[in-house]
Amino acid sequence: MEQLLKVMNFCVSSDGVAAGEQQSRERPFGFDNPERLFSWAGATASWPNRTDPGGSRGLDDYFTRVFLLNIGAEIMGRNKFGPQRGPWEDYEWRGWWGDEPPFRTPVFVMTHHLRPSFTLSDTTFHFVDGDPATVLAQAREAAQGKDVRLGGGVTTVRQFLDADLVDALHVAVSPIRLGSGLQLWTSPDELLDRFHLEVVPSPSGVTHHLFWRR
Amino acid sequence: MEQLLKVMNFCVSSDGVAAGEQQSRERPFGFDNPERLFSWAGATASWPNRTDPGGSRGLDDYFTRVFLLNIGAEIMGRNKFGPQRGPWEDYEWRGWWGDEPPFRTPVFVMTHHLRPSFTLSDTTFHFVDGDPATVLAQAREAAQGKDVRLGGGVTTVRQFLDADLVDALHVAVSPIRLGSGLQLWTSPDELLDRFHLEVVPSPSGVTHHLFWRR
Repeated sequence: MEQLLKVMNFCVSSDGVAAGEQQSRERPFGFDNPERLFSWAGATASWPNRTDPGGSRGLDDYFTRVFLLNIGAEIMGRNKFGPQRGPWEDYEWRGWWGDEPPFRTPVFVMTHHLRPSFTLSDTTFHFVDGDPATVLAQAREAAQGKDVRLGGGVTTVRQFLDADLVDALHVAVSPIRLGSGLQLWTSPDELLDRFHLEVVPSPSGVTHHLFWRR
Repeated sequence: MEQLLKVMNFCVSSDGVAAGEQQSRERPFGFDNPERLFSWAGATASWPNRTDPGGSRGLDDYFTRVFLLNIGAEIMGRNKFGPQRGPWEDYEWRGWWGDEPPFRTPVFVMTHHLRPSFTLSDTTFHFVDGDPATVLAQAREAAQGKDVRLGGGVTTVRQFLDADLVDALHVAVSPIRLGSGLQLWTSPDELLDRFHLEVVPSPSGVTHHLFWRR
Protein backbone atom coordinates (compact mmCIF):
# COMPACT_ATOMS: atom_id res chain seq x y z
CA MET A 1 0.00 0.00 0.00
CA GLU A 2 1.28 3.41 -0.97
CA GLN A 3 2.15 5.54 2.05
CA LEU A 4 2.77 9.15 1.13
CA LEU A 5 4.79 11.77 2.99
CA LYS A 6 2.78 14.98 2.80
CA VAL A 7 3.32 18.60 3.77
CA MET A 8 -0.12 20.06 4.54
CA ASN A 9 -1.34 23.60 5.19
CA PHE A 10 2.20 24.94 5.29
CA CYS A 11 2.05 28.74 5.41
CA VAL A 12 4.61 31.09 3.90
CA SER A 13 4.79 34.77 2.97
CA SER A 14 4.93 35.99 -0.61
CA ASP A 15 8.72 35.95 -0.31
CA GLY A 16 8.69 32.31 0.88
CA VAL A 17 9.36 32.98 4.57
CA ALA A 18 7.81 30.51 7.02
CA ALA A 19 9.47 31.52 10.30
CA GLY A 20 11.57 34.26 11.84
CA GLU A 21 15.00 33.60 13.25
CA GLN A 22 14.25 34.70 16.82
CA GLN A 23 11.84 32.05 18.10
CA SER A 24 10.77 32.36 21.74
CA ARG A 25 8.01 31.11 24.00
CA GLU A 26 6.10 34.31 23.22
CA ARG A 27 6.83 34.15 19.50
CA PRO A 28 6.45 30.52 18.36
CA PHE A 29 7.00 31.51 14.75
CA GLY A 30 9.79 33.95 15.45
CA PHE A 31 7.99 36.99 14.10
CA ASP A 32 5.15 39.22 15.24
CA ASN A 33 1.51 38.70 14.31
CA PRO A 34 1.85 35.23 12.79
CA GLU A 35 -1.89 35.27 12.19
CA ARG A 36 -1.02 37.25 9.07
CA LEU A 37 0.02 33.88 7.61
CA PHE A 38 -2.59 31.66 9.30
CA SER A 39 -5.84 33.61 9.48
CA TRP A 40 -7.13 32.00 6.25
CA ALA A 41 -7.11 28.63 8.04
CA GLY A 42 -8.62 29.91 11.27
CA ALA A 43 -11.59 31.32 9.35
CA THR A 44 -12.66 27.90 8.06
CA ALA A 45 -15.33 25.65 9.57
CA SER A 46 -12.89 22.72 9.76
CA TRP A 47 -10.01 24.48 11.54
CA PRO A 48 -8.96 21.91 14.17
CA ASN A 49 -8.71 24.49 16.96
CA ARG A 50 -12.12 26.04 16.30
CA THR A 51 -14.25 26.22 19.44
CA ASP A 52 -17.30 28.13 18.16
CA PRO A 53 -19.62 26.92 15.38
CA GLY A 54 -19.60 28.69 12.05
CA GLY A 55 -16.68 29.35 9.77
CA SER A 56 -16.42 29.31 5.99
CA ARG A 57 -17.04 26.22 3.86
CA GLY A 58 -15.45 27.46 0.66
CA LEU A 59 -12.16 26.53 -0.96
CA ASP A 60 -9.94 27.08 2.10
CA ASP A 61 -12.09 24.72 4.14
CA TYR A 62 -11.19 21.79 1.88
CA PHE A 63 -7.58 22.17 2.98
CA THR A 64 -8.23 22.29 6.71
CA ARG A 65 -10.85 19.53 6.41
CA VAL A 66 -8.33 16.93 5.26
CA PHE A 67 -5.81 17.64 8.04
CA LEU A 68 -6.47 14.30 9.78
CA LEU A 69 -7.74 12.32 6.76
CA ASN A 70 -5.78 9.10 6.28
CA ILE A 71 -2.86 10.48 8.31
CA GLY A 72 -1.28 7.95 10.68
CA ALA A 73 1.73 9.85 12.02
CA GLU A 74 3.44 13.24 11.95
CA ILE A 75 7.12 14.13 11.77
CA MET A 76 8.20 17.51 13.10
CA GLY A 77 11.44 19.30 13.89
CA ARG A 78 12.33 20.27 17.40
CA ASN A 79 11.68 23.94 16.69
CA LYS A 80 8.08 23.17 15.82
CA PHE A 81 7.81 21.32 19.13
CA GLY A 82 9.24 24.13 21.25
CA PRO A 83 11.55 27.16 21.54
CA GLN A 84 14.30 25.43 23.54
CA ARG A 85 17.74 24.70 22.11
CA GLY A 86 20.39 22.24 23.34
CA PRO A 87 19.97 19.68 26.14
CA TRP A 88 16.61 19.62 27.97
CA GLU A 89 16.84 21.27 31.39
CA ASP A 90 13.70 19.42 32.40
CA TYR A 91 10.74 17.74 30.73
CA GLU A 92 8.16 20.28 31.76
CA TRP A 93 7.63 21.58 28.21
CA ARG A 94 5.06 19.41 26.40
CA GLY A 95 4.52 21.42 23.23
CA TRP A 96 2.50 24.52 22.37
CA TRP A 97 -0.84 22.78 22.06
CA GLY A 98 -2.15 22.27 25.59
CA ASP A 99 -3.78 19.05 26.77
CA GLU A 100 -5.38 18.20 23.42
CA PRO A 101 -2.87 18.54 20.60
CA PRO A 102 -4.56 18.51 17.19
CA PHE A 103 -2.44 15.68 15.75
CA ARG A 104 -4.21 12.64 17.27
CA THR A 105 -1.52 10.24 16.05
CA PRO A 106 2.04 9.38 17.03
CA VAL A 107 4.31 12.41 16.46
CA PHE A 108 8.03 11.99 15.86
CA VAL A 109 10.07 14.99 17.03
CA MET A 110 13.52 15.07 15.42
CA THR A 111 16.21 16.13 17.88
CA HIS A 112 19.73 15.24 18.96
CA HIS A 113 18.52 15.61 22.55
CA LEU A 114 16.32 12.64 23.36
CA ARG A 115 13.73 12.47 26.13
CA PRO A 116 11.03 9.96 27.10
CA SER A 117 7.88 9.65 25.00
CA PHE A 118 4.68 11.04 26.51
CA THR A 119 0.99 11.07 25.61
CA LEU A 120 -1.50 13.95 25.66
CA SER A 121 -5.04 12.86 24.83
CA ASP A 122 -4.84 11.04 21.44
CA THR A 123 -1.32 12.26 20.59
CA THR A 124 1.92 10.52 21.63
CA PHE A 125 5.19 12.40 21.16
CA HIS A 126 8.32 10.37 20.47
CA PHE A 127 11.81 11.93 20.32
CA VAL A 128 14.10 10.52 17.69
CA ASP A 129 17.63 11.19 16.52
CA GLY A 130 18.16 9.97 12.98
CA ASP A 131 18.46 11.05 9.38
CA PRO A 132 15.25 11.81 7.48
CA ALA A 133 15.02 8.39 5.81
CA THR A 134 15.37 6.59 9.15
CA VAL A 135 12.80 8.76 10.88
CA LEU A 136 10.42 8.36 7.94
CA ALA A 137 10.71 4.58 8.20
CA GLN A 138 9.81 4.79 11.90
CA ALA A 139 6.85 7.07 11.21
CA ARG A 140 5.60 4.87 8.38
CA GLU A 141 5.61 1.84 10.62
CA ALA A 142 3.70 3.73 13.31
CA ALA A 143 1.20 5.00 10.71
CA GLN A 144 0.02 1.43 10.00
CA GLY A 145 -0.56 1.88 6.31
CA LYS A 146 -1.78 5.47 6.44
CA ASP A 147 0.10 8.50 5.14
CA VAL A 148 2.62 10.51 7.15
CA ARG A 149 2.36 14.28 7.57
CA LEU A 150 5.57 16.29 7.54
CA GLY A 151 4.60 19.06 9.91
CA GLY A 152 7.58 21.43 9.68
CA GLY A 153 9.15 23.71 10.62
CA VAL A 154 10.74 25.03 7.52
CA THR A 155 14.23 23.60 8.21
CA THR A 156 12.75 20.14 8.58
CA VAL A 157 10.74 20.42 5.37
CA ARG A 158 13.87 21.55 3.53
CA GLN A 159 15.80 18.56 4.93
CA PHE A 160 13.23 16.07 3.62
CA LEU A 161 12.98 17.85 0.27
CA ASP A 162 16.76 17.71 -0.06
CA ALA A 163 16.60 13.96 0.61
CA ASP A 164 13.81 13.67 -2.01
CA LEU A 165 11.44 11.98 0.44
CA VAL A 166 8.41 14.26 0.05
CA ASP A 167 5.52 13.03 -2.13
CA ALA A 168 3.10 15.97 -1.97
CA LEU A 169 3.02 19.51 -0.59
CA HIS A 170 0.25 21.99 0.01
CA VAL A 171 1.76 25.43 0.65
CA ALA A 172 -0.49 28.45 1.31
CA VAL A 173 1.20 31.66 0.20
CA SER A 174 -0.05 34.82 1.91
CA PRO A 175 0.07 38.18 0.15
CA ILE A 176 2.40 39.75 2.71
CA ARG A 177 6.16 40.21 2.50
CA LEU A 178 8.22 39.38 5.57
CA GLY A 179 11.62 40.37 4.18
CA SER A 180 13.76 38.22 6.43
CA GLY A 181 13.55 34.85 8.13
CA LEU A 182 13.75 31.18 7.27
CA GLN A 183 12.70 30.60 3.68
CA LEU A 184 11.02 27.54 2.24
CA TRP A 185 11.98 28.74 -1.22
CA THR A 186 13.04 31.74 -3.23
CA SER A 187 10.44 30.70 -5.79
CA PRO A 188 8.06 27.72 -6.01
CA ASP A 189 9.59 27.05 -9.43
CA GLU A 190 12.56 25.49 -7.64
CA LEU A 191 10.46 22.35 -7.13
CA LEU A 192 9.21 21.97 -10.69
CA ASP A 193 11.90 19.51 -11.71
CA ARG A 194 10.41 16.93 -9.35
CA PHE A 195 6.79 17.98 -8.84
CA HIS A 196 3.67 18.86 -10.73
CA LEU A 197 2.32 22.21 -9.53
CA GLU A 198 -1.14 23.70 -9.50
CA VAL A 199 -1.50 27.29 -8.30
CA VAL A 200 -4.98 28.05 -6.97
CA PRO A 201 -5.86 31.57 -5.80
CA SER A 202 -8.41 31.65 -2.98
CA PRO A 203 -11.03 34.36 -2.42
CA SER A 204 -9.46 34.75 1.06
CA GLY A 205 -6.32 36.23 -0.47
CA VAL A 206 -3.93 33.29 -0.05
CA THR A 207 -2.73 31.32 -3.03
CA HIS A 208 -2.69 27.56 -2.57
CA HIS A 209 0.27 25.81 -4.17
CA LEU A 210 -0.35 22.09 -4.71
CA PHE A 211 2.67 19.95 -5.56
CA TRP A 212 2.74 16.25 -6.20
CA ARG A 213 5.56 14.03 -7.37
CA ARG A 214 6.05 13.62 -11.13
CA MET B 1 -23.84 17.99 17.08
CA GLU B 2 -24.34 19.70 13.75
CA GLN B 3 -25.25 17.24 10.98
CA LEU B 4 -25.07 18.79 7.55
CA LEU B 5 -26.83 17.75 4.37
CA LYS B 6 -24.29 18.08 1.58
CA VAL B 7 -24.31 17.78 -2.18
CA MET B 8 -20.83 16.68 -3.25
CA ASN B 9 -19.11 16.39 -6.62
CA PHE B 10 -22.34 17.11 -8.46
CA CYS B 11 -21.53 17.56 -12.16
CA VAL B 12 -23.38 19.85 -14.55
CA SER B 13 -22.77 21.35 -17.97
CA SER B 14 -22.16 25.06 -18.52
CA ASP B 15 -25.90 25.42 -19.09
CA GLY B 16 -26.72 23.69 -15.81
CA VAL B 17 -27.77 20.31 -17.22
CA ALA B 18 -27.05 17.28 -15.03
CA ALA B 19 -28.97 14.55 -16.86
CA GLY B 20 -30.75 13.84 -20.11
CA GLU B 21 -34.40 12.95 -20.24
CA GLN B 22 -34.00 9.52 -21.86
CA GLN B 23 -32.32 7.45 -19.14
CA SER B 24 -31.75 3.78 -19.93
CA ARG B 25 -29.60 0.91 -18.75
CA GLU B 26 -27.07 1.85 -21.42
CA ARG B 27 -27.28 5.57 -20.70
CA PRO B 28 -27.38 6.02 -16.89
CA PHE B 29 -27.21 9.79 -17.26
CA GLY B 30 -29.60 9.97 -20.18
CA PHE B 31 -27.12 11.46 -22.64
CA ASP B 32 -24.13 10.19 -24.59
CA ASN B 33 -20.55 10.38 -23.37
CA PRO B 34 -21.29 11.37 -19.77
CA GLU B 35 -17.54 11.30 -19.15
CA ARG B 36 -17.59 14.80 -20.63
CA LEU B 37 -18.98 15.87 -17.25
CA PHE B 38 -17.07 13.44 -15.03
CA SER B 39 -13.60 13.00 -16.45
CA TRP B 40 -12.15 15.65 -14.11
CA ALA B 41 -13.03 13.39 -11.16
CA GLY B 42 -11.82 10.18 -12.76
CA ALA B 43 -8.40 11.75 -13.34
CA THR B 44 -7.77 12.28 -9.63
CA ALA B 45 -5.79 10.00 -7.32
CA SER B 46 -8.71 9.79 -4.87
CA TRP B 47 -11.46 8.84 -7.34
CA PRO B 48 -13.33 6.06 -5.47
CA ASN B 49 -13.53 3.80 -8.53
CA ARG B 50 -9.84 4.10 -9.41
CA THR B 51 -8.20 0.70 -9.85
CA ASP B 52 -4.71 1.68 -11.02
CA PRO B 53 -2.26 3.78 -8.99
CA GLY B 54 -1.47 7.30 -10.10
CA GLY B 55 -3.85 10.16 -10.74
CA SER B 56 -3.55 13.86 -10.07
CA ARG B 57 -3.19 15.33 -6.58
CA GLY B 58 -4.02 18.92 -7.43
CA LEU B 59 -7.16 20.92 -6.72
CA ASP B 60 -9.68 18.43 -8.13
CA ASP B 61 -8.30 15.70 -5.91
CA TYR B 62 -9.36 17.60 -2.78
CA PHE B 63 -12.97 17.23 -3.89
CA THR B 64 -12.87 13.50 -4.60
CA ARG B 65 -10.75 12.90 -1.47
CA VAL B 66 -13.49 14.06 0.91
CA PHE B 67 -16.23 11.91 -0.66
CA LEU B 68 -16.42 9.58 2.37
CA LEU B 69 -15.10 11.98 5.02
CA ASN B 70 -17.52 12.31 7.94
CA ILE B 71 -20.41 11.05 5.81
CA GLY B 72 -22.73 8.62 7.60
CA ALA B 73 -25.51 8.13 5.04
CA GLU B 74 -26.59 9.02 1.50
CA ILE B 75 -29.96 9.99 0.13
CA MET B 76 -30.62 9.41 -3.57
CA GLY B 77 -33.56 9.49 -5.92
CA ARG B 78 -34.79 6.38 -7.64
CA ASN B 79 -33.39 7.53 -10.98
CA LYS B 80 -29.89 7.63 -9.54
CA PHE B 81 -30.44 4.07 -8.33
CA GLY B 82 -31.64 2.70 -11.65
CA PRO B 83 -33.39 3.29 -14.98
CA GLN B 84 -36.67 1.55 -14.08
CA ARG B 85 -39.93 3.44 -13.61
CA GLY B 86 -43.12 2.33 -11.85
CA PRO B 87 -43.57 -0.88 -9.82
CA TRP B 88 -40.59 -3.26 -9.59
CA GLU B 89 -41.00 -6.28 -11.87
CA ASP B 90 -38.43 -8.11 -9.78
CA TYR B 91 -35.62 -7.26 -7.40
CA GLU B 92 -32.81 -8.29 -9.66
CA TRP B 93 -31.54 -4.75 -10.19
CA ARG B 94 -29.15 -3.79 -7.38
CA GLY B 95 -27.82 -0.47 -8.66
CA TRP B 96 -25.17 0.51 -11.21
CA TRP B 97 -22.20 -0.04 -8.97
CA GLY B 98 -21.51 -3.77 -8.90
CA ASP B 99 -20.67 -5.73 -5.77
CA GLU B 100 -18.78 -2.88 -4.08
CA PRO B 101 -20.75 0.34 -4.27
CA PRO B 102 -18.62 3.36 -3.37
CA PHE B 103 -20.95 4.70 -0.67
CA ARG B 104 -19.98 2.45 2.26
CA THR B 105 -22.88 3.70 4.43
CA PRO B 106 -26.63 3.24 4.55
CA VAL B 107 -28.22 4.66 1.37
CA PHE B 108 -31.84 5.83 1.32
CA VAL B 109 -33.46 5.52 -2.09
CA MET B 110 -36.57 7.69 -2.42
CA THR B 111 -39.35 5.94 -4.30
CA HIS B 112 -43.08 5.35 -4.15
CA HIS B 113 -42.37 1.70 -5.01
CA LEU B 114 -40.86 0.08 -1.94
CA ARG B 115 -38.79 -3.08 -1.89
CA PRO B 116 -36.74 -4.89 0.77
CA SER B 117 -33.42 -3.47 1.93
CA PHE B 118 -30.29 -5.26 0.80
CA THR B 119 -26.57 -5.03 1.49
CA LEU B 120 -23.65 -5.06 -0.95
CA SER B 121 -20.27 -5.02 0.78
CA ASP B 122 -20.29 -1.97 3.15
CA THR B 123 -23.36 -0.36 1.59
CA THR B 124 -26.98 -1.06 2.60
CA PHE B 125 -29.77 0.25 0.38
CA HIS B 126 -33.08 1.15 2.00
CA PHE B 127 -36.16 2.14 -0.01
CA VAL B 128 -38.26 4.89 1.50
CA ASP B 129 -41.40 6.74 0.53
CA GLY B 130 -41.63 10.09 2.29
CA ASP B 131 -41.20 13.80 1.86
CA PRO B 132 -37.68 15.21 1.94
CA ALA B 133 -37.81 16.26 5.61
CA THR B 134 -38.95 12.78 6.70
CA VAL B 135 -36.31 10.99 4.66
CA LEU B 136 -33.63 13.39 5.94
CA ALA B 137 -34.63 12.59 9.52
CA GLN B 138 -34.26 8.86 8.79
CA ALA B 139 -30.88 9.37 7.13
CA ARG B 140 -29.63 11.57 9.98
CA GLU B 141 -30.50 8.93 12.51
CA ALA B 142 -28.70 6.27 10.46
CA ALA B 143 -25.67 8.57 10.08
CA GLN B 144 -25.05 8.49 13.84
CA GLY B 145 -23.87 12.06 14.17
CA LYS B 146 -22.08 12.26 10.85
CA ASP B 147 -23.17 14.34 7.86
CA VAL B 148 -25.55 13.12 5.16
CA ARG B 149 -24.70 13.26 1.47
CA LEU B 150 -27.46 14.16 -0.98
CA GLY B 151 -26.37 12.13 -3.96
CA GLY B 152 -28.80 13.22 -6.66
CA GLY B 153 -30.09 12.97 -9.27
CA VAL B 154 -30.95 16.46 -10.21
CA THR B 155 -34.69 16.16 -9.49
CA THR B 156 -33.93 15.00 -5.97
CA VAL B 157 -31.45 17.82 -5.37
CA ARG B 158 -34.03 20.34 -6.58
CA GLN B 159 -36.62 18.84 -4.23
CA PHE B 160 -34.37 19.26 -1.20
CA LEU B 161 -33.34 22.77 -2.27
CA ASP B 162 -36.98 23.73 -2.64
CA ALA B 163 -37.59 22.44 0.91
CA ASP B 164 -34.56 24.48 2.09
CA LEU B 165 -32.90 21.42 3.63
CA VAL B 166 -29.48 21.61 1.94
CA ASP B 167 -26.58 23.05 3.96
CA ALA B 168 -23.72 22.92 1.44
CA LEU B 169 -23.23 22.11 -2.24
CA HIS B 170 -20.18 21.43 -4.35
CA VAL B 171 -21.13 21.62 -8.02
CA ALA B 172 -18.50 21.06 -10.74
CA VAL B 173 -19.42 22.93 -13.91
CA SER B 174 -17.89 21.55 -17.11
CA PRO B 175 -17.14 23.81 -20.07
CA ILE B 176 -19.52 21.97 -22.41
CA ARG B 177 -23.05 22.89 -23.38
CA LEU B 178 -25.67 20.15 -23.45
CA GLY B 179 -28.59 22.27 -24.64
CA SER B 180 -31.40 20.11 -23.31
CA GLY B 181 -32.03 17.89 -20.31
CA LEU B 182 -32.75 18.19 -16.61
CA GLN B 183 -31.31 21.40 -15.24
CA LEU B 184 -29.99 22.02 -11.76
CA TRP B 185 -30.22 25.75 -12.44
CA THR B 186 -30.43 28.35 -15.14
CA SER B 187 -27.71 30.23 -13.28
CA PRO B 188 -25.88 29.57 -9.98
CA ASP B 189 -26.98 33.04 -8.93
CA GLU B 190 -30.41 31.59 -8.18
CA LEU B 191 -29.00 30.23 -4.92
CA LEU B 192 -27.32 33.40 -3.70
CA ASP B 193 -30.21 34.49 -1.51
CA ARG B 194 -29.58 31.53 0.78
CA PHE B 195 -25.96 30.56 0.20
CA HIS B 196 -22.47 31.98 0.15
CA LEU B 197 -20.76 31.10 -3.13
CA GLU B 198 -17.11 30.72 -4.06
CA VAL B 199 -16.31 30.05 -7.71
CA VAL B 200 -12.98 28.27 -8.18
CA PRO B 201 -11.67 27.51 -11.68
CA SER B 202 -9.60 24.36 -11.87
CA PRO B 203 -6.66 23.75 -14.23
CA SER B 204 -8.62 20.71 -15.48
CA GLY B 205 -11.20 23.00 -17.10
CA VAL B 206 -14.11 22.54 -14.68
CA THR B 207 -15.18 25.35 -12.40
CA HIS B 208 -15.96 24.31 -8.85
CA HIS B 209 -18.90 26.11 -7.29
CA LEU B 210 -18.89 25.95 -3.50
CA PHE B 211 -22.07 26.97 -1.71
CA TRP B 212 -22.71 27.02 2.00
CA ARG B 213 -25.65 28.31 3.95
CA ARG B 214 -25.66 31.97 4.97
